[in-house]
Amino acid sequence: MASKEGRLQGMRQNTKVFDAYVELRLDRGMALSTQPYKGTRDFYPEDMRIQRWMFNRMREVVERYGYREYDGPMLEPFELYAAKTGEEIVNQQLYWLMDRGERKLAIRPEMTPTLARMVAAKFHELPRPVRWFSTPNLWRYERPQRGRLREHWQLNVDVLGGDPLLADAEILSLALDVLRGFGGEKHVSIRVNNRRLMDHLFREKMGLNAETALQVTKALDARAKVGEEAYAKWLGDLGVDSQKRDVMERFFQSGFEETAKNLPCEGVTELRSLFELLEQSGAAGSVQFDPTVLRGLDYYTGTVFEMYDTSPDNRRAIFGGGRYDNLLALFGNYKLSGVGFGMGDVTLRNFLETHQLLPSFGSAVDVFVSLPRPELRLHAEKVAQSCRSLGLRVITPLSSEGFGAQLKQASKHGARFAVLFGDTEIAQGQAMLKDLSTGEQVTVGLAELAPRIHQVIKGT
Amino acid sequence: MASKEGRLQGMRQNTKVFDAYVELRLDRGMALSTQPYKGTRDFYPEDMRIQRWMFNRMREVVERYGYREYDGPMLEPFELYAAKTGEEIVNQQLYWLMDRGERKLAIRPEMTPTLARMVAAKFHELPRPVRWFSTPNLWRYERPQRGRLREHWQLNVDVLGGDPLLADAEILSLALDVLRGFGGEKHVSIRVNNRRLMDHLFREKMGLNAETALQVTKALDARAKVGEEAYAKWLGDLGVDSQKRDVMERFFQSGFEETAKNLPCEGVTELRSLFELLEQSGAAGSVQFDPTVLRGLDYYTGTVFEMYDTSPDNRRAIFGGGRYDNLLALFGNYKLSGVGFGMGDVTLRNFLETHQLLPSFGSAVDVFVSLPRPELRLHAEKVAQSCRSLGLRVITPLSSEGFGAQLKQASKHGARFAVLFGDTEIAQGQAMLKDLSTGEQVTVGLAELAPRIHQVIKGT
Repeated sequence: MASKEGRLQGMRQNTKVFDAYVELRLDRGMALSTQPYKGTRDFYPEDMRIQRWMFNRMREVVERYGYREYDGPMLEPFELYAAKTGEEIVNQQLYWLMDRGERKLAIRPEMTPTLARMVAAKFHELPRPVRWFSTPNLWRYERPQRGRLREHWQLNVDVLGGDPLLADAEILSLALDVLRGFGGEKHVSIRVNNRRLMDHLFREKMGLNAETALQVTKALDARAKVGEEAYAKWLGDLGVDSQKRDVMERFFQSGFEETAKNLPCEGVTELRSLFELLEQSGAAGSVQFDPTVLRGLDYYTGTVFEMYDTSPDNRRAIFGGGRYDNLLALFGNYKLSGVGFGMGDVTLRNFLETHQLLPSFGSAVDVFVSLPRPELRLHAEKVAQSCRSLGLRVITPLSSEGFGAQLKQASKHGARFAVLFGDTEIAQGQAMLKDLSTGEQVTVGLAELAPRIHQVIKGT
Repeated sequence: MASKEGRLQGMRQNTKVFDAYVELRLDRGMALSTQPYKGTRDFYPEDMRIQRWMFNRMREVVERYGYREYDGPMLEPFELYAAKTGEEIVNQQLYWLMDRGERKLAIRPEMTPTLARMVAAKFHELPRPVRWFSTPNLWRYERPQRGRLREHWQLNVDVLGGDPLLADAEILSLALDVLRGFGGEKHVSIRVNNRRLMDHLFREKMGLNAETALQVTKALDARAKVGEEAYAKWLGDLGVDSQKRDVMERFFQSGFEETAKNLPCEGVTELRSLFELLEQSGAAGSVQFDPTVLRGLDYYTGTVFEMYDTSPDNRRAIFGGGRYDNLLALFGNYKLSGVGFGMGDVTLRNFLETHQLLPSFGSAVDVFVSLPRPELRLHAEKVAQSCRSLGLRVITPLSSEGFGAQLKQASKHGARFAVLFGDTEIAQGQAMLKDLSTGEQVTVGLAELAPRIHQVIKGT
């Protein structure tokens, strides 16, 4: 500290405090890292462009179903998740903090609790069914790996109210249409199950109580991760004997008709109706019954589903969701059932890359307007503004380098056209227009310049 | 706890654990609040629509200047702000937490440090000048008041590299164009000052050392908030006597030419050049010298500016920014000067509302396709899909209520058109199209239906 004080003292007469601080840090090898926090991403312009493109395309599809966009704050009361999100998320994955007023807050790990809160707050005003979507930023403390990061962005789509099965069918058709919007519908299949059917299996066929059934669900959810041995031990600890395990294994290997015969229950009836409705929507071909789909969140009550890439290289779920009946009850005496899904940007982008469904984007800049000499800046500015007024993306050099350096700058920034001029062109009310993609160059009257570029750009 | 356990026990046979938990909370009057965390906002669809509209419009203008969008994570290492953001922000306003790996993280209170980090990370690859923008979500622990919330969204625009004054001029012209994009340019004025001029005043005219000068800046920044008396005491404590205060007061009341004469320095030269450049860009009429503009952030070094509403009712700055020379040096031996501004959504929306510059948005839903009987759903779905394929926003009822109830639902959701049909219409390959804004109703062939609606919607 003494030495820092000393150095600062010596600098006071000729340097600002911040500069001194920065220099001192550097001298001591205390430069900060340029890397983003582990498990998060920096979106440089090329990535940001893909990100915008993905979310705009999803937004477009979802809005065609009349869904309205909403958003809420990144920080919510910790209790909102403590109450209803899966145990693993709350105990191990939640980012939380205390604010200066001793309020315990969490960075949202999922969007549905915020949605439920907002719908409950205007329970009597909102026209039903509530069809909403959002594109939140979500955080979970996870071990970063392919398809799983600590921060991600998600498309969240929900319907609250309406006939549950009609709503379930709409959500699944819409989800498939989102994939169709990317040209990816033929590479996916939606696997559907029903929590009521699972409850029936656990309770009636296996004789488990609700608490044990919940634990078994968690064991099943973790099965692939922990391996068969740990899974078997887990079940043993829960008192699930080998006979019960056999019942469960047989269930997981059964097709829908066999299940319907062996376990007639409300869950089966719902699934059958759902498949009929999906037939009417033209979505049935991409949907199949899968008794192994469980979903980790505790609040699901009916239909649950996950969308998978059908190619064997990409085995993670692209998205998942389900029906929840009692989420609004956290806020008071509100009864409104909902269904929804969340589609994350990391898995979606992996999927689009796997199937080469990302487009090749054109230039990010349309026009580079040169500045041969500082005194000509007024003229250059006018040309630039005339192009901007037609919606073209225009850059000008922020220095008056030589002709060659300027053209190099134009191409480094990926400009499609360069506008060049000198005293002669200005005197004649003209400019040279160079197409940087072909090298072709023409002389054009100033009034024609912007419309001409506009025509080429918008025509391509 | 015992009673909770007891109740859970009793419920095990017929209810799921989550449901029991929820019920129990309610019984005990433990319902969660439906209000968002203090100082934050829920964006219901009507607000979200305005939010999207504002940011899309800003994005459009900024992209016309060839700026590229970027983004970084919401959480950054705490040190990133400890080093360079104003003291008040770090000590009193930063939201921070420790992650499970004992890393101290902050929720970003501003975007520029992230920008500096990202540019430093690709210092040798990025084409210069770097023209970037972002629309981040930012957090500060503030006492909520009009125009100031704990969470807000901001448009951030920066240029790094290039001739500093040309870049400053571009940033100011662009900022004014953003306001022009809303039709608000005639209600604003940009007040410009220069940190070098201030340094000259503090050092040469008042004989303050850098540390005291920084403290005086903070006192000036807080002057309006703390009041004249506290301000005078603050200055006294810093050893600024009444003679020095007089020098400062005279400075604050001087126009540009008078200042240029009394305090000739680099800062004055820069300001004069900047005003000339703004003249060329056609922006000079909206820009004026204001020696009282200081900006709170410690890292500004040259041009600083704030945009104000010229109407007396709305006296908060709409945005502010300035030039920073040494921000990248936090990350190593990188020298690259930049200039930028941040425009917050809260103040912008206040401004647009004050001047009635928000548009009246049309319907959020274009078409309501009725479902007279469940068996006709296949037909209804086809009609809905044909409208969606033209980009129309279509809702269908998620129940088969009566005709009247369905029309009521259509109008509650703000649909512009309703498509109605029964067996007769289906048999004739037709449907009734009702314009809900006029009540007019016509019978249309199914093939014409979607194109006809599309034409009306896109034509309005």
